[in-house]
Amino acid sequence: MISVVILGAGNVATHLYKAISKTDKVSVVQWYNRNLDALKTYKNDVLITDDLAQLKEADVYLLAVSDDAVKGLSSQLPFENRLVVHTSGSVGVYDIDQKHQRGVLYPLQTFSKAADLNFANVPICIEALESKDYHVLKNLAKSIGSPTKKVNTDQRKVLHLAAVFVNNFTNQLYRIAHEITESEGAEFDLLKPLILETANKVQEISPYMAQTGPAKRNDKKTLKRHLKLLKDQHHTDIYNLLTTSIQRTHGRKKL
Amino acid sequence: MISVVILGAGNVATHLYKAISKTDKVSVVQWYNRNLDALKTYKNDVLITDDLAQLKEADVYLLAVSDDAVKGLSSQLPFENRLVVHTSGSVGVYDIDQKHQRGVLYPLQTFSKAADLNFANVPICIEALESKDYHVLKNLAKSIGSPTKKVNTDQRKVLHLAAVFVNNFTNQLYRIAHEITESEGAEFDLLKPLILETANKVQEISPYMAQTGPAKRNDKKTLKRHLKLLKDQHHTDIYNLLTTSIQRTHGRKKL
Repeated sequence: MISVVILGAGNVATHLYKAISKTDKVSVVQWYNRNLDALKTYKNDVLITDDLAQLKEADVYLLAVSDDAVKGLSSQLPFENRLVVHTSGSVGVYDIDQKHQRGVLYPLQTFSKAADLNFANVPICIEALESKDYHVLKNLAKSIGSPTKKVNTDQRKVLHLAAVFVNNFTNQLYRIAHEITESEGAEFDLLKPLILETANKVQEISPYMAQTGPAKRNDKKTLKRHLKLLKDQHHTDIYNLLTTSIQRTHGRKKL
Repeated sequence: MISVVILGAGNVATHLYKAISKTDKVSVVQWYNRNLDALKTYKNDVLITDDLAQLKEADVYLLAVSDDAVKGLSSQLPFENRLVVHTSGSVGVYDIDQKHQRGVLYPLQTFSKAADLNFANVPICIEALESKDYHVLKNLAKSIGSPTKKVNTDQRKVLHLAAVFVNNFTNQLYRIAHEITESEGAEFDLLKPLILETANKVQEISPYMAQTGPAKRNDKKTLKRHLKLLKDQHHTDIYNLLTTSIQRTHGRKKL
């Protein structure tokens, strides 16, 4: 049985708490947040505290806090030589105060407050300075059903960067599609099966192999027609840049 | 029973043929292609021809050919006053020769040769100049299991444009994520659940509501860290442009 103290009350902290509560291989012995109000829903299920001096002993301290808070909070912890890990994609493992055993448990997924999350769909990237700590973290992650992967700091950071491309930037393309369709009174909903199929396709084949469309074909007539339809210069810029990007990848000339 | 002649042998033509073959409410009376070789797999199942003069009579002639071929092929058809429709997102309905009754049956999905397609996931956008033709096309689409939507030419064209954003451009962002992760020996596969979840999220909530991440939060430290990691100027340009786009949408200042 791995014992855990969770620190923080955001989406990652809450989803980890819920997932851990469902397994009997890991137990949350305490949940800390500097503002207790955020934890009050759970006060009958788990020991909660807003006082670092009251922290219980545990195998792992999970700092599921904002990137900027990792360094300060880890140095304020009133103990040493225990395993303290953060959950950030972009913060270095050495940002955790050196008085601790240090590691990272980075769940590579987008977390919303509302939806219940199946951790089978949340790969957890693990980094630890010592091999025995790595095994504790791997067991913890496996206990909540996550696939795990050992990564180094550089790999974790590029995964976090790549996640911005496939999540935030992709979502912004959906948003632009929403704006474009709405401007003509067409239904964005009609695009939803295509959005899903596009994501499904690259589960099996590489994005390189999955590419289709006028940019890849260098279908100049369609490219011209599209540019004529775009009314927002900003959308035009994105259209041109991503068309050029596709043509670079697939060996076509630039627009 | 609606009778159909299919013209063309590409992905759209082939998937439509297969879908229609499964229903007994529509029959393919003949399949035309200027190159018969492309149809030989099906020669025992359906009448095939490469001779426009031999075309049978049918309720609907489906021109599932390249955009540039619609105009010429429709004018070469050796008959008049029959319902001739194309399947393109970006070609005007009036590009079909005026000697015909004209319409469009635009399946809003990405078609690969290999995979079998469930037309329940293929919304079909219908355009017709006459109301009775619209109803024939709607019945045809419903018979293969597709949701249908009546659209005008402008709406169809912006849907086609928006489809490029959510399909081709999104896929290119996946590709860039692949390049970025590979450059550090990290596994692109770790991003696949996030790719799916990003697409799933906007099935229920708007892209506007679904947005998260450093650009939306205007988290300058992370934005700076990411820009430092990017080694390809072209990736940097895309990062900057899409970050600005998110900040425009969500009312943040530019980078």
